[in-house]
Amino acid sequence: MAIPQFKEIRRAYGFNDVAIAPGPVTINPDQTSIEWTLGKHTFSIPIIASAMDAVVSPETAVLFGKLGGLGVLNLEGVWSRYEDAAEVLAELTAAPLETVTPLFQKLYTAPVKLELIGRNIQRIKRSGVVCAAAITPQSTKQFAPAAVEAGADILFVQSTVTTARHISKSYRGLVLSELVEQIKVPVVVGNAVTYGVALELMETGIQGLLVGVGPGAACTTREVTGVGVPQVTATMDCAAAREEYFGRTGRYVPIITDGGIRTGGDLCKVFVSGADAAMLGTPFAQANEAPGRGHNWGMATPHPALPRGTRIHVGTKAPLEQILFGPSSVTDGTMNLVGALRAAMGMVGAFSIREMQQAELVYAPDIKTEGKLFQMKQGR
Amino acid sequence: MAIPQFKEIRRAYGFNDVAIAPGPVTINPDQTSIEWTLGKHTFSIPIIASAMDAVVSPETAVLFGKLGGLGVLNLEGVWSRYEDAAEVLAELTAAPLETVTPLFQKLYTAPVKLELIGRNIQRIKRSGVVCAAAITPQSTKQFAPAAVEAGADILFVQSTVTTARHISKSYRGLVLSELVEQIKVPVVVGNAVTYGVALELMETGIQGLLVGVGPGAACTTREVTGVGVPQVTATMDCAAAREEYFGRTGRYVPIITDGGIRTGGDLCKVFVSGADAAMLGTPFAQANEAPGRGHNWGMATPHPALPRGTRIHVGTKAPLEQILFGPSSVTDGTMNLVGALRAAMGMVGAFSIREMQQAELVYAPDIKTEGKLFQMKQGR
Amino acid sequence: MAIPQFKEIRRAYGFNDVAIAPGPVTINPDQTSIEWTLGKHTFSIPIIASAMDAVVSPETAVLFGKLGGLGVLNLEGVWSRYEDAAEVLAELTAAPLETVTPLFQKLYTAPVKLELIGRNIQRIKRSGVVCAAAITPQSTKQFAPAAVEAGADILFVQSTVTTARHISKSYRGLVLSELVEQIKVPVVVGNAVTYGVALELMETGIQGLLVGVGPGAACTTREVTGVGVPQVTATMDCAAAREEYFGRTGRYVPIITDGGIRTGGDLCKVFVSGADAAMLGTPFAQANEAPGRGHNWGMATPHPALPRGTRIHVGTKAPLEQILFGPSSVTDGTMNLVGALRAAMGMVGAFSIREMQQAELVYAPDIKTEGKLFQMKQGR
Amino acid sequence: MAIPQFKEIRRAYGFNDVAIAPGPVTINPDQTSIEWTLGKHTFSIPIIASAMDAVVSPETAVLFGKLGGLGVLNLEGVWSRYEDAAEVLAELTAAPLETVTPLFQKLYTAPVKLELIGRNIQRIKRSGVVCAAAITPQSTKQFAPAAVEAGADILFVQSTVTTARHISKSYRGLVLSELVEQIKVPVVVGNAVTYGVALELMETGIQGLLVGVGPGAACTTREVTGVGVPQVTATMDCAAAREEYFGRTGRYVPIITDGGIRTGGDLCKVFVSGADAAMLGTPFAQANEAPGRGHNWGMATPHPALPRGTRIHVGTKAPLEQILFGPSSVTDGTMNLVGALRAAMGMVGAFSIREMQQAELVYAPDIKTEGKLFQMKQGR
Repeated sequence: MAIPQFKEIRRAYGFNDVAIAPGPVTINPDQTSIEWTLGKHTFSIPIIASAMDAVVSPETAVLFGKLGGLGVLNLEGVWSRYEDAAEVLAELTAAPLETVTPLFQKLYTAPVKLELIGRNIQRIKRSGVVCAAAITPQSTKQFAPAAVEAGADILFVQSTVTTARHISKSYRGLVLSELVEQIKVPVVVGNAVTYGVALELMETGIQGLLVGVGPGAACTTREVTGVGVPQVTATMDCAAAREEYFGRTGRYVPIITDGGIRTGGDLCKVFVSGADAAMLGTPFAQANEAPGRGHNWGMATPHPALPRGTRIHVGTKAPLEQILFGPSSVTDGTMNLVGALRAAMGMVGAFSIREMQQAELVYAPDIKTEGKLFQMKQGR
Repeated sequence: MAIPQFKEIRRAYGFNDVAIAPGPVTINPDQTSIEWTLGKHTFSIPIIASAMDAVVSPETAVLFGKLGGLGVLNLEGVWSRYEDAAEVLAELTAAPLETVTPLFQKLYTAPVKLELIGRNIQRIKRSGVVCAAAITPQSTKQFAPAAVEAGADILFVQSTVTTARHISKSYRGLVLSELVEQIKVPVVVGNAVTYGVALELMETGIQGLLVGVGPGAACTTREVTGVGVPQVTATMDCAAAREEYFGRTGRYVPIITDGGIRTGGDLCKVFVSGADAAMLGTPFAQANEAPGRGHNWGMATPHPALPRGTRIHVGTKAPLEQILFGPSSVTDGTMNLVGALRAAMGMVGAFSIREMQQAELVYAPDIKTEGKLFQMKQGR
Repeated sequence: MAIPQFKEIRRAYGFNDVAIAPGPVTINPDQTSIEWTLGKHTFSIPIIASAMDAVVSPETAVLFGKLGGLGVLNLEGVWSRYEDAAEVLAELTAAPLETVTPLFQKLYTAPVKLELIGRNIQRIKRSGVVCAAAITPQSTKQFAPAAVEAGADILFVQSTVTTARHISKSYRGLVLSELVEQIKVPVVVGNAVTYGVALELMETGIQGLLVGVGPGAACTTREVTGVGVPQVTATMDCAAAREEYFGRTGRYVPIITDGGIRTGGDLCKVFVSGADAAMLGTPFAQANEAPGRGHNWGMATPHPALPRGTRIHVGTKAPLEQILFGPSSVTDGTMNLVGALRAAMGMVGAFSIREMQQAELVYAPDIKTEGKLFQMKQGR
Repeated sequence: MAIPQFKEIRRAYGFNDVAIAPGPVTINPDQTSIEWTLGKHTFSIPIIASAMDAVVSPETAVLFGKLGGLGVLNLEGVWSRYEDAAEVLAELTAAPLETVTPLFQKLYTAPVKLELIGRNIQRIKRSGVVCAAAITPQSTKQFAPAAVEAGADILFVQSTVTTARHISKSYRGLVLSELVEQIKVPVVVGNAVTYGVALELMETGIQGLLVGVGPGAACTTREVTGVGVPQVTATMDCAAAREEYFGRTGRYVPIITDGGIRTGGDLCKVFVSGADAAMLGTPFAQANEAPGRGHNWGMATPHPALPRGTRIHVGTKAPLEQILFGPSSVTDGTMNLVGALRAAMGMVGAFSIREMQQAELVYAPDIKTEGKLFQMKQGR
């Protein structure tokens, strides 16, 4: 008997499922260009630090900018809630692990202060780098004007899952097309993972799209709610939307894959999957300069009723500059991310990120084989 | 040489194989409705506690009802066999693990007493909640009338695998259509996992169908007998039968996925697979109020010759109300199940369970990736 | 560019890849018949003990026969080489693990004695059970006549991989059609795993076929040589050959799946894959009566230059009768194998092994999910 | 809505994904021939030792040659940089693991000396064996003439990824067709993994192709850069190119699978995937005579900015001759590699490597089943 199908289940791929096939031509890594453009801003490296309190402080935002990247400050984080954020971070990172969830839930209920938002943005601007600030859709109307007035160059409107149409009775849903119209700076929105939503969001006029639901190390959205799409497929689907929209309108909306990127290998796969830039958290939480002091936690961690993720101990590895540009003293892919990207582009024969998006991926989930072999490396 | 195929092997999916893709619209979780209806009873949450002795006592059945759900009392469990069931549970849960299988086999051979059945049902009814009682097909003729007479509102007729046609020489097989006709209360039957059997069972007139063979934590049916179908596929196939039957007859027979659900993520996937309600065991065996005192075991565990499953230590986590409604103090998806379901429905854009059944699933077995990342969470 | 395909790679399934779907009807396990026929011999249970020295001694061969099964004596094992085999077994099982490979290589070079072959077969025959003896193709001409003369009822001609056409310069290849003609008892041949070879072997006139290369616990053929086909696919392909041959000639050649069967679940899947009987080693090496005293090793273990497998510690579990017929005091599927088979046939609705071959299999490799859950069972 | 596909993802297979199916005929292993030819040189075994400093010294190159194989000397390794290479190796292998990456980076920056290249090649030649030397493309113009002049018989031009067209501004890319023309000895080039590149490389006139990117135990290219193709698919694709080129031109360019081969099983699969020879590192680093003294490291390990792989402790197992030809005293497939290959060819019915390439592969990733069983082997 033929069984009627209740619904189709589509195959989705994550970083560990795929590998990049070398290209027909190889080029020297020093001949690759990895720059990318968001609105009128061009960045020399396509790497963004996540708007997480353990990753981006006003100081590290400046450091990221000086190194050619972009660090996004969370406008609803500790820096906007406390005069002395350093003291709060010290408390959060020193508490025993079994007690941190209620502590997070408590400390993140202090009110956000407009004055602190302004002061922190000005601190970043004074250093001369591009300043990006992140905010949730619910708070955008309340805080966005002050942020832009204080000098923010780019606004990230970010929640776990974002669509162009949000239905709520407690507040009038944020209308992105109105926001884009009113605000004078580029608006980057996310996170999304599907073709249809990506297309709808681009049609609102946004200048960039964040891709990723569920895959981040500091977030357990998929475990808690079942919702999530592996990043390779999510990126490919949103890239397909970007191409469709670009072909139709001539406007190119870069997509930024956000979450789950841990190694140089993951980073390289993001671009082959179609991304224009990548947003990383944990690898930068491991920088000597990171405010999290060797820990990381996600934006959904302090949720009062349904926390997703907890404080992760990630350790402290090296100065941020060395994590980005090497030289690497480790061999597990977590250092010299830019060098890894250029090396991969060399092997693939891609002169630019746009060419890297054309490389070939194979489905190669035999990482376990290699895992077995890697066990030998524990040395003597 | 073309090799003739002996038989076709169809792909089946379990909870860890799939993830839910976000929808085209998002809604605020507080705008979702998760109620469902069985016969004339409407419940505010689509969550049922399994008819396991470690999960549902007369007292916890009342508690589940007051919280908006349904706790099903096992009419062949310790409460029907012993005046002082608490003492027997104390013995079962205190015995060393290596001796429990023979102990279960012995303690579950004491006879079921009609008087105790009646007394326990009345205890539940007195509190004003809907009373559901479970019974095996072999014992239905013997015990069902007394249960209904004592006030049971819903009868669950449940065995490892149930079909509309059972062949036996030792007793005349239970004819479900006759039972449904005679008994004045809704009859829920299971467990089934295939399209054909689901359809046949619906045609007997039953009011609900339990779905699931093999996947429960406290049951090793699949290991012992090889029989089992992963829950996502089982639910989808039975949902296809429900739709076919509903389209043809206009009668809607809700399906209840039973077994293997451990986290909020699993729970949400059950509905996207097509279920109307979910039956859980282990998560509720972890409630402070659970009769199993931090342990769980299945209905096939005491089988005299072929025990499947054993006593599992599950620990004690929180009051039942907190497990269901939060707030959660853990981040692994085992608390605030209702909050997780509403959050997922918000991300999917589903106002009702019926709409949640329409959401998209992707095949995304890269949980190992995330598993690797989760290892970092063991804190400092 | 379309890449020319060097060769096609076909999907093959093993026990852990599949599960049995319940059937449209259920029957009481006590109404199932599990008998099977080989030549003129009918056995009440379709379970054979492997021709391994740690499993079948003359004494346990008698025991298997009395319980309704068949224990095959290895004619090239210790019983044919040593007057006092018990002493040799004591030495083999007592030696430290790191020294056993050379010890095996040494002790298995003592010559096989015709006199001992005869004496052991007569010992089995005297008890009144069917006597089966195993021999390698190279030694068949030398030892088979004596075995039959001494009273062997069935001859197993068995090597790692057997085909109808073997090419050798050191001895004239055994011509199976001649052997079948000359010898007056049924000849069972193996092991094979492919459709073509199974068909060719049946055409030589053999009365039974052993299926399985690579999957046994006591054999590492696949690791050492890369050769092997998972048992579900191997059995399905050989069953397809049996059906084709049966349909064409009217002669039914039963197939016996040999190797890799550890639990009741594996055993049940063997029959749904198309087998008529199953040959098990390790589960019977765990019997109190087993000559291996809690150890097991394969027939390729003593190979002088390329040993495959080693001595495995399997422990001692229960009397053989209890392993076969229960009652089980464990819940992992290793006891009451016959009960498990009858229970599965009940859930599938199969009255006979021949009907069990028609049941449905699903591809359901989510055993890891359940594995994760099973970890909870480590008790308190 | 149909989602436009951004790119196709092709399935790729590694060693652990596949198994070899036995053939229609079996032959005695002693009737197999495993010789192969590279240029005018015929070797009795199709096994090559990798150009790694821990594997091939001038002395072990001689030993490999005398045993019928080929050991390739790395012309940019310690033997070309230091008069007293043994002392440097002692330092490299004695240093604590956590300090070796910087030590490698330092010790491998000493200049390569033409005089040492010549002296080492002559040492090998004096013993009468075929001498093969490896060099990177960047250094080929500088060192290749001296190597050939000193007597090298075969030149390996080898880098992580090689194509026929390399683009660089720092040096004029090596033009392989010119090199092949000028140099009087066979040139083997690699590594490549794709059909198109293999074809282009063959068209430059090279005499052999090395296949493999990413899979080696001592290399973490895939982890660091995401680039890699599992070896079974890589070999099959390059074999398809060899057949296409051979059919068109009549010139047969043997392909050599390099990397990731650990057991006899892996080795056998290489040939069934289409290889003519196999290059192994780690299994020979375990030889008593290996210069790495129980350690191994790859050619990319000392990379100054992006090291891939580190020093692996592999242990010391047996004399090289025993690793190749047995007898084996272990049962895990790491000894008697030649015996394993001949045994597999016997089961497959292949008289030659060319026939072995025609054998059948099945996709059989149930190695975990067997893994579970193997755990039992930890003995008593």
